[in-house]
Amino acid sequence: MTVETHRIRIDTRGNAEVLNLTEPLLDCLGTGTVRDGTVCLFVVGSTGGITTTEFEPGLARTDLKALFERLAPEDGRYAHEETWHDDNGHSHVRASLLGPSLTIPLVDGRLTLGTWQQVVLLDFDTRPRQREIVVQVLGA
Amino acid sequence: MTVETHRIRIDTRGNAEVLNLTEPLLDCLGTGTVRDGTVCLFVVGSTGGITTTEFEPGLARTDLKALFERLAPEDGRYAHEETWHDDNGHSHVRASLLGPSLTIPLVDGRLTLGTWQQVVLLDFDTRPRQREIVVQVLGA
Amino acid sequence: MTVETHRIRIDTRGNAEVLNLTEPLLDCLGTGTVRDGTVCLFVVGSTGGITTTEFEPGLARTDLKALFERLAPEDGRYAHEETWHDDNGHSHVRASLLGPSLTIPLVDGRLTLGTWQQVVLLDFDTRPRQREIVVQVLGA
Repeated sequence: MTVETHRIRIDTRGNAEVLNLTEPLLDCLGTGTVRDGTVCLFVVGSTGGITTTEFEPGLARTDLKALFERLAPEDGRYAHEETWHDDNGHSHVRASLLGPSLTIPLVDGRLTLGTWQQVVLLDFDTRPRQREIVVQVLGA
Repeated sequence: MTVETHRIRIDTRGNAEVLNLTEPLLDCLGTGTVRDGTVCLFVVGSTGGITTTEFEPGLARTDLKALFERLAPEDGRYAHEETWHDDNGHSHVRASLLGPSLTIPLVDGRLTLGTWQQVVLLDFDTRPRQREIVVQVLGA
Repeated sequence: MTVETHRIRIDTRGNAEVLNLTEPLLDCLGTGTVRDGTVCLFVVGSTGGITTTEFEPGLARTDLKALFERLAPEDGRYAHEETWHDDNGHSHVRASLLGPSLTIPLVDGRLTLGTWQQVVLLDFDTRPRQREIVVQVLGA
């Protein structure tokens, strides 16, 4: 049983941008030796989240953004912004709701994703950033 | 330390149906040898999610369904549907929000669930399906 | 590769109270030997959830509470309450939505949290409780 640590670094634009992590994730796994175990992805920072979706423009550019705008509107009132004279209160609560982490089984060298199921990062911040996602692989 | 892979296959009706996975999950664990570690459940596909709840009819048949209908209404407008002439845009965004995965500690041969806490699949799709949930057990 | 089980017990007041678990979590890890692996936190019970946030008063006392009150209002109508003559239907659906579990990579003896990213428990119940969070560490 081994532990392998990878890091994905990706430039983001924020504002609920949805980024497909599947290819960089497969690249990471391709450099490792684990064939059966679990893959834990974790986004560093408190204004991003990780989940899966069918990565097509309708969902990725419009529907997921609209969902989070409805749940936590950008122009809502947030105590976080009054404290820090900041503008990303909505970013923080959206990220906490979605969660920073996702764990996927790795079976016989393959992630158990569905055909139309991709791993995505949602960046809720209000400015471009370079994001770091830690990929922790446990298994044999 | 070993890795054990199980699969739960379950017929679903969709429309935010809440299905109790606790019994089939315990059946899987009963065929394995790991007593201490973690159990990762992952639903294959992008219109289902996994979480825990007290599995009683009020929550399972009414309240959770009403929650997701409020968060992402079935009759809302979704770009996903316009792209694919599909009807399940709401299913996709609900599933991304809830997340496809759950990890539970296994301690001394038992899941650390509370007495009134069951593992559930929410199937958000708009048609009956057979769902596959991968159960990845790591431990000793 | 080893498995280490810790338990955090913490008094909560409920009503979407946000509690910082980072210090007790670091205390647990300090008593163990694993330096590289994953840390799975799991709250026992179906009215609490775990995520990360920047733990500052604006988000912790006001914004996250307001988010969940908007998503699942306390004075909404819940079938769970009619079944059990209970008052915590909103607590249950909020907890299922957030999820009871979080997994964080441990790399070279450190959690891969961001500087402004703390691990938090949200207790959605309607009364004070003593909560138990199981911390399962896998790695080497």
